[in-house]
Amino acid sequence: MPTIDINSDLGESFGAWTMGDDSAMLDIVSSANVACGFHAGDPAGILKTLKAAAERGVAIGAHVGYRDLAGFGRRNMDPSSEELIGDVIYQIGALQGLAKAAGTRVTYVKPHGALYNTIAIDARQGKDVIDAILAVDPSLVLMALAGSPLVAQARTAGLTVVAEAFADRAYTPEGNLVSRREKGSVLHDPDLIATRMVRMVREGVIDAIDGTFTKVDAQSICVHGDSPGAVAMAKRLREVFEQSGLSIRAFSGIA
Amino acid sequence: MPTIDINSDLGESFGAWTMGDDSAMLDIVSSANVACGFHAGDPAGILKTLKAAAERGVAIGAHVGYRDLAGFGRRNMDPSSEELIGDVIYQIGALQGLAKAAGTRVTYVKPHGALYNTIAIDARQGKDVIDAILAVDPSLVLMALAGSPLVAQARTAGLTVVAEAFADRAYTPEGNLVSRREKGSVLHDPDLIATRMVRMVREGVIDAIDGTFTKVDAQSICVHGDSPGAVAMAKRLREVFEQSGLSIRAFSGIA
Amino acid sequence: MPTIDINSDLGESFGAWTMGDDSAMLDIVSSANVACGFHAGDPAGILKTLKAAAERGVAIGAHVGYRDLAGFGRRNMDPSSEELIGDVIYQIGALQGLAKAAGTRVTYVKPHGALYNTIAIDARQGKDVIDAILAVDPSLVLMALAGSPLVAQARTAGLTVVAEAFADRAYTPEGNLVSRREKGSVLHDPDLIATRMVRMVREGVIDAIDGTFTKVDAQSICVHGDSPGAVAMAKRLREVFEQSGLSIRAFSGIA
Amino acid sequence: MPTIDINSDLGESFGAWTMGDDSAMLDIVSSANVACGFHAGDPAGILKTLKAAAERGVAIGAHVGYRDLAGFGRRNMDPSSEELIGDVIYQIGALQGLAKAAGTRVTYVKPHGALYNTIAIDARQGKDVIDAILAVDPSLVLMALAGSPLVAQARTAGLTVVAEAFADRAYTPEGNLVSRREKGSVLHDPDLIATRMVRMVREGVIDAIDGTFTKVDAQSICVHGDSPGAVAMAKRLREVFEQSGLSIRAFSGIA
Repeated sequence: MPTIDINSDLGESFGAWTMGDDSAMLDIVSSANVACGFHAGDPAGILKTLKAAAERGVAIGAHVGYRDLAGFGRRNMDPSSEELIGDVIYQIGALQGLAKAAGTRVTYVKPHGALYNTIAIDARQGKDVIDAILAVDPSLVLMALAGSPLVAQARTAGLTVVAEAFADRAYTPEGNLVSRREKGSVLHDPDLIATRMVRMVREGVIDAIDGTFTKVDAQSICVHGDSPGAVAMAKRLREVFEQSGLSIRAFSGIA
Repeated sequence: MPTIDINSDLGESFGAWTMGDDSAMLDIVSSANVACGFHAGDPAGILKTLKAAAERGVAIGAHVGYRDLAGFGRRNMDPSSEELIGDVIYQIGALQGLAKAAGTRVTYVKPHGALYNTIAIDARQGKDVIDAILAVDPSLVLMALAGSPLVAQARTAGLTVVAEAFADRAYTPEGNLVSRREKGSVLHDPDLIATRMVRMVREGVIDAIDGTFTKVDAQSICVHGDSPGAVAMAKRLREVFEQSGLSIRAFSGIA
Repeated sequence: MPTIDINSDLGESFGAWTMGDDSAMLDIVSSANVACGFHAGDPAGILKTLKAAAERGVAIGAHVGYRDLAGFGRRNMDPSSEELIGDVIYQIGALQGLAKAAGTRVTYVKPHGALYNTIAIDARQGKDVIDAILAVDPSLVLMALAGSPLVAQARTAGLTVVAEAFADRAYTPEGNLVSRREKGSVLHDPDLIATRMVRMVREGVIDAIDGTFTKVDAQSICVHGDSPGAVAMAKRLREVFEQSGLSIRAFSGIA
Repeated sequence: MPTIDINSDLGESFGAWTMGDDSAMLDIVSSANVACGFHAGDPAGILKTLKAAAERGVAIGAHVGYRDLAGFGRRNMDPSSEELIGDVIYQIGALQGLAKAAGTRVTYVKPHGALYNTIAIDARQGKDVIDAILAVDPSLVLMALAGSPLVAQARTAGLTVVAEAFADRAYTPEGNLVSRREKGSVLHDPDLIATRMVRMVREGVIDAIDGTFTKVDAQSICVHGDSPGAVAMAKRLREVFEQSGLSIRAFSGIA
């Protein structure tokens, strides 16, 4: 039976501010990218999310980001290598501590927001993130954008990499994401999204925006949970996967 | 040969701001209380201090504090238990990650500033800190104020506790610190300080402010390094200890 | 025609995190306590709220708080007088700048959360807040808890003070708020709340929790907007006021 | 008698961390670029610096920066226009409030660090800063890098602009700063620096790095105060100016 991982960004509340519905999403996903406090997440809230994830056997990833709470880690920054390496190690360590307290452990790292987009193509910052992971725990898996140069860079450096696709994003014939600035870049039909993703899991291809198919080699699918609509879409994806005989399981094989 | 530990607060620079002379102090102390980012310390700077400590075989403690950068963790706060437990675990985990990257490890926890003073007598916040340590790693030693109720509270809860004395502080006949608001509460003569501390290590007593002696059961001595004068005083203390045949060694026995 | 002011806490979103429904509340209230960035509020979001308030002629108050984003300003802190005076002036000035850019101006100051509760009874921190207001603009009105010692303290110091009552809180026979820890401290019936407040405006009394009446001298009424239920309750209060022939108008007489 | 302004970055301490010697520098400069809390500066410390500046009749500029305390505002960021406009207004307003409390007022704005360098050439962020100044107080002068495109952009938008030269930096024959990455970009000889600056004030030219002269149209000279050597260099510059019959006076003519 073919298996696939579903991941989502969680633990993104902060103090009095709530974001997303972690409880609902933890019933859907097999891997949780948990905020580490730099772009979102306060320790008590993160711990609560980790405990809920542990109860459901959901794998834990460190969702490390730039130190930019006001910008939610979505703004480009140019930290020095010393700074970025330190910041990534710090966040992974903090989440490892909280995960231990929650009875689980961190098995992978997924950079967030602007850091995610930057290292997909910026080899210097990419190397910093890789060096940070190697320094703190080389067995941690790196989750990266399918088709990005980072995938090969990290594998060459000795990391295990899991590539991910985005359930609700259109792809170019070359297998890249269609820019959010272009029309049709984000999909909204839950059934269409589910059908595309089933094909990707089974055949390794996604319907590109021009009607052709593009090869996408992804072991995980990212879904959103920041609105009731997003949660419903993720839920539908899981249902269709189950009806299609696909097994949803954390790529890391660890809960 | 009697042994004693000397500890100091380090890693307290932040970004462009420098505090103290970590390099000089790491040649003097056997245990380094390293800031964890909440009251002081940025990850890159902390990592540098940890590497320097690792090179010299100095033991590492997590110097956890309130989330109060502007107040340097010196202002009283009343976080909820959920918040305080989360914050302490987060800080310990972050330092563990950085310590691993530096080739060393965290062996103890010493709360900082207002948190240190509060938990010495506030059983609720004390329990939160104890619970946090137990949740993340019960083998971590807690460093606490000699003679404070926290010592017994933490031992009853199952933690190993190391009590500390302050080299440059006057003591009451009851073995408590003379309040900083009172005259004579802080000592300035390096030789007098050294003589007092030699007696404390050898005989377990400190000259109290009224001329009597008070029993102080301490396995570690705290020295400061935030000014050239403080560094000189700490250096003198180490010299006198060595001349007196006392062995300076991390209480944790781990470097 | 008797007039009354209705105030609410607004501008409390931060970056990617939304709190409350500022737009809906600005159609209800006559005075907006706008967050100043220390407990909540980012400049761009605050500016948006200020513009919306300016369009509707709603008066602007600086909702100054402790520097505690993670705790939403709800945790007690003990800043020094120097720190607290500086922090309050800074926040007022920042809001004045944003208000000017929005085509309006700050007419009053209402401390938030733990600072509000503390200065109601703590004369030292109360004096710090008063001194800060006097230093930056003595014509700013202080909004304070009706019946608290702060009201007289601030008036003696030369400030104009507006006392406020809480629409949904039970009162003791002595005119104090029933502690939130006690049963019945928070009211939930919109019509009962409205009826009580009409009486307070007309007769200067509130039904106390023991069935007696207590005198409450308040020129403003605080309502919440942090949930759909709270918005509905505030809307109902306004309707009943209008049906009862009460005029809702900012105490400061300035829009 | 020809006059010239000397400016320096001040108020850059934060909480327990000290930076620079504000007191010494305020005896040297005629204009103080005072940190506004986003890259450096806590309100109580800023207020102290403002009071000292007011006593000496030194003009006050808002030294606005990116929201990046850990990076001291030296890291490039890409805030949206909404965010940058809001952040700049907020900082100017906060400093205006503190200046009022200190008995002085803000007369100009000088962006700091990465923001300064970015807007010198980035028209979008430049427009944001200009729009922010226009929104809060169009009479505020903008201090900008002599020869940069920003000077004309801001003048066209209606702002008064003062251009500044850097006392200790080498210039290209085209009148640009030699990149810090190149050899000889920073000058260290106090007398050479003073001689060059006297010539610039008198003749409007600076000795370029290739031995030719380059025209530099600057009404203010920036000096540093972050080390004892920097303070000595600034002091020497002032002495030579006075000996050369140049009058040191804030460009804004306001103290």
